[in-house]
Amino acid sequence: MGYRKGEIGMELVQVRELFRNKEQYLGKKITVGGWVRSVRDTKTFGFIVMSDGTFFETLQIVYTDKLSNFAEISKFNVGSAVVVTGTLVATPDAKQPFEIQAEEVLLEGASTSDYPLQKKRHSLEFLRAMTHLRPRTNTFQAVFRVRSLVAYAIHKFFQERDFVYVHTPLITGSDCEGAGEMFQVTTLDLNNIPKTKEGQVDFDQDFFNKPTNLTVSGQLNGETYAMAFKNIYTFGPTFRAENSNTTRHAAEFWMIEPEIAFADLKDDMILAESMLKYVIKYVLEHAPEEMEFFNSFVDQGLLERLQHVANSDFGHVTYTEAIEILEKNNDKFEYKVSWGCDLQTEHERFLTEQIFKKPVFVTDYPKEIKAFYMKLNEDNKTVAAMDLLVPGIGEIIGGSQREDDYDKLVAKMKESDLNEEDYDFYLDLRKYGSARHAGFGLGFERCVMYLTGMGNIRDVIPFPRTVNNCDL
Amino acid sequence: MGYRKGEIGMELVQVRELFRNKEQYLGKKITVGGWVRSVRDTKTFGFIVMSDGTFFETLQIVYTDKLSNFAEISKFNVGSAVVVTGTLVATPDAKQPFEIQAEEVLLEGASTSDYPLQKKRHSLEFLRAMTHLRPRTNTFQAVFRVRSLVAYAIHKFFQERDFVYVHTPLITGSDCEGAGEMFQVTTLDLNNIPKTKEGQVDFDQDFFNKPTNLTVSGQLNGETYAMAFKNIYTFGPTFRAENSNTTRHAAEFWMIEPEIAFADLKDDMILAESMLKYVIKYVLEHAPEEMEFFNSFVDQGLLERLQHVANSDFGHVTYTEAIEILEKNNDKFEYKVSWGCDLQTEHERFLTEQIFKKPVFVTDYPKEIKAFYMKLNEDNKTVAAMDLLVPGIGEIIGGSQREDDYDKLVAKMKESDLNEEDYDFYLDLRKYGSARHAGFGLGFERCVMYLTGMGNIRDVIPFPRTVNNCDL
Repeated sequence: MGYRKGEIGMELVQVRELFRNKEQYLGKKITVGGWVRSVRDTKTFGFIVMSDGTFFETLQIVYTDKLSNFAEISKFNVGSAVVVTGTLVATPDAKQPFEIQAEEVLLEGASTSDYPLQKKRHSLEFLRAMTHLRPRTNTFQAVFRVRSLVAYAIHKFFQERDFVYVHTPLITGSDCEGAGEMFQVTTLDLNNIPKTKEGQVDFDQDFFNKPTNLTVSGQLNGETYAMAFKNIYTFGPTFRAENSNTTRHAAEFWMIEPEIAFADLKDDMILAESMLKYVIKYVLEHAPEEMEFFNSFVDQGLLERLQHVANSDFGHVTYTEAIEILEKNNDKFEYKVSWGCDLQTEHERFLTEQIFKKPVFVTDYPKEIKAFYMKLNEDNKTVAAMDLLVPGIGEIIGGSQREDDYDKLVAKMKESDLNEEDYDFYLDLRKYGSARHAGFGLGFERCVMYLTGMGNIRDVIPFPRTVNNCDL
Repeated sequence: MGYRKGEIGMELVQVRELFRNKEQYLGKKITVGGWVRSVRDTKTFGFIVMSDGTFFETLQIVYTDKLSNFAEISKFNVGSAVVVTGTLVATPDAKQPFEIQAEEVLLEGASTSDYPLQKKRHSLEFLRAMTHLRPRTNTFQAVFRVRSLVAYAIHKFFQERDFVYVHTPLITGSDCEGAGEMFQVTTLDLNNIPKTKEGQVDFDQDFFNKPTNLTVSGQLNGETYAMAFKNIYTFGPTFRAENSNTTRHAAEFWMIEPEIAFADLKDDMILAESMLKYVIKYVLEHAPEEMEFFNSFVDQGLLERLQHVANSDFGHVTYTEAIEILEKNNDKFEYKVSWGCDLQTEHERFLTEQIFKKPVFVTDYPKEIKAFYMKLNEDNKTVAAMDLLVPGIGEIIGGSQREDDYDKLVAKMKESDLNEEDYDFYLDLRKYGSARHAGFGLGFERCVMYLTGMGNIRDVIPFPRTVNNCDL
């Protein structure tokens, strides 16, 4: 192969460019590079189907025995990297819009006959065991391009509204809201943990001079920035050391947490609804081929559902009203509901799919089942919280207005057995120019699952981390 | 204060909107919300200077004794949150373009007379001790808005070119390139580490069933995706447990790592140059007030330097040529150079500032001082690596073409005492359709320092993590 400096490199035409602007290239001589999906040949000519990874559809190459390496080409294994020069020709009678009539087919890098991704369809489970190769398959080409577009759409949405993107820290010395089990971070020698005279771990010798963990939420840090910039968002990794082996839980995942000041729960819901609609429209517009694929092969009805969501006014119901509705249908549920209980996925889906038939915000939950920082309502029983439920999945966003009253917050922290000193910075926000503010959290992977119809969180994360699994 | 549902919230006009589209608001009655920077009053009228965090410039409010709470307003402490309704009036003779003549000034949240951010100027060091309040100051308003814009500009650059954004994992089971000291991640009880019969840590009981660390680079994972999508980039947190207490090192920082297939070192340099110029132009266009501030108060000459970089063709020099140049000037350096040595910041800055007087790529370094995955050149002595040096800072980007030949890579791994089994996935990329490819790494914080002129990495990270420091 050798190091052919400056020879072709980025002067290759990308397959995406061919499909998006074919008029510019039809009848012209071009060079493309990519990976062989299949080769079939007759005595005098053959076809290569290749993908260069820039576009969901493949490109067909026709080659003939006029090429000196005709016999060699016909033996290319699936997965081989090739560089092809030839003329782009329209094929009005074929399934594909055009093909390349090759004048030169060079082998960039060979593949082997035991290449694990043969033309036949592989199960998602089979592919999960080869995280480094699965992005070369149709399904994962679609998933991970959409994942990328969703991430960008979220940034674009917030940046167009002048929100400040804040990188909240990953390593943290506090356990924040005390949510979930946490991963410890340390540089101590695990084989020989230094101890104090009292026999406890001597964290003075650790990197940060104290016990540290991986963050479970950037919210509290985010609030400090909302009280400076008014509107901010975070978008970063978050961790849970929960021993739950489900299709919806990962130990490492990404979260988006906007926080808005001089804003209340209503504003928070307007923001969440706008964001979700924006993201749906963005992927439908920018990944039509991928979305068609999901609709046909992964989740029939996906496109209709998403279009419906993008064009509906979301519903609103209080928790108390929701419980009244659900109680009338308790015979349908495994877990019977009553006021004060947490909603299960079956209840959430019933509300959004059977009752509202569209996304619905459930608001004003009992204070006992929600976090300490949520704003107490005037009824003294409920808090200004909201969950957004969507058809096909249940809860996708959870948010709240935050308690901005110093005294009420201190009282609540005492009730919740939180150590006031750990939250000095958080209380300062209520001491120095407190302002009503609100925010929400969107689990990024849940969002990608929702938009693609993929059913297992392991299949929407490039290199998933779950209990007992930390490959590559 | 109370929970005034739906009362104003996001219907407030943002100060940014007033400055950017003042014609729409002049003469009209509007409501704004923000934080008091200063109040001064006479017997019959007074001025509030406020910021709502959406714009670098402050807004002036005039209030008179016609307001029933005139006396109260005059006693507002710095930092108070206020909601003001009034008419926006042009002030052609004043420094600021307009002011609000208030009809109502409501206290949203009081501040105290001991509010730590008084009007006087505070040192960066003083402010470092209050990470939750410093974003309310001019300097940090500018830094963290620019940081947000730089992050977005980077995404925009790559997305406009159809690169796929890949989230490479944070928790990793391998030590990748063996670079730097790593943080361990564990759920084992540090007070009571379980041991095997042989007396070693029993990682079977740990969350992932094996030792895990925080990533130092997403590159190797990124390469697997470049071999599927052609062009990808990562943008995520990276960690170093290095015990170095400098102004340029943090334990947790963000990195951008693009990787391009069917591309060589030349393409890599074109990409790096385009990206850096794009980002510079983006911040100059989108944060002119902030950039002026840096130029005036943080780093005089910054704007000129950046404009020069945005409009220069970057220089190119091989390491070997660079050494020849530097050797002639060895009397100027603390560390004398000779072929084979690593370049220090003094050498890098001399090259870019004295010799080239613009950014310059140094290429083709001795293989001994570079990483195992870099492509061996035909001379068998150097590798296809590049560092981009920029005036005022030295190295800002480091990249290389990757070794894409299976046998050469295996040989190099043996030389480097790497365990081949740990890199099966990486070798697979050279076995199944290998293609020339290249990439680089940009330290995000270094980039923000470069663009703002800020001299300490602790001042461009919202919540910095350094040795012995993991606050909030």
